[in-house]
Amino acid sequence: MKKTQTVLALAALLTASSVAWADDQDVIDYRRHVMKTMGAQMKAIGMILEKKIPADQLLTHLKVIAATAPQARSAFEPEVEGGAAKAEVWSNWDDFSKRLDILVAGTADLVKAAETSGAAAAASKLPTSLNCKGCHDVYRNAAK
Amino acid sequence: MKKTQTVLALAALLTASSVAWADDQDVIDYRRHVMKTMGAQMKAIGMILEKKIPADQLLTHLKVIAATAPQARSAFEPEVEGGAAKAEVWSNWDDFSKRLDILVAGTADLVKAAETSGAAAAASKLPTSLNCKGCHDVYRNAAK
Repeated sequence: MKKTQTVLALAALLTASSVAWADDQDVIDYRRHVMKTMGAQMKAIGMILEKKIPADQLLTHLKVIAATAPQARSAFEPEVEGGAAKAEVWSNWDDFSKRLDILVAGTADLVKAAETSGAAAAASKLPTSLNCKGCHDVYRNAAK
Repeated sequence: MKKTQTVLALAALLTASSVAWADDQDVIDYRRHVMKTMGAQMKAIGMILEKKIPADQLLTHLKVIAATAPQARSAFEPEVEGGAAKAEVWSNWDDFSKRLDILVAGTADLVKAAETSGAAAAASKLPTSLNCKGCHDVYRNAAK
């Protein structure tokens, strides 16, 4: 995208009163981008835990996960079934939504722990803050 | 991964004198995870610019890109050809490395601009700070 186009696009965006979620496929696409981000970073963290790569980027990986968590919450808020999300996401919204809140708060805590007390402190919080499987087993359609 | 396993793995990691990059495939896999993160977030930002989704997560997207940039620099430092990276990455290392430094600094500036002056200020810096294509045209093998 050329510079002028980008600036114009953003300017238009910022002066518009609001931007609605355009259509269902956009919502599903956006969710995929967000969850793909989370998945890729978790794989990178997994490689650190398996000692396949050095741990020097552990903090930035945690920062990425923490910044992506609110995107996930935002991406699931529109009630659009499809993609890899099971219908239970919305039929059990109170539970699912609570899990997203825990993800957002828990990953922010992970970053704080890593920044103030080092990686070992963050490590003890990892399993509860990043329990991907706990949610995916219930709410993700693995076949999609 | 169970809690105990994770804590033990991290504890072992932190007490080890150092962890080398285990093998070439690990380096390539790690690069893929990092670049996939960047790509997924750029697609999400693209959806915002196209007004397909609301802009309320723009700052977190910029934060993710900024936190991923140093991962990219770290991921390319070991001289391992393969994956989508052209051999020119290492034969032109001074140029490539400089571009990575610009990415790291530029994306950090984007976050600062968005935090202090709002999204419009960040928008004017977007094209120079996130010139994915400029680098990919020269250094990425699109077929892989």
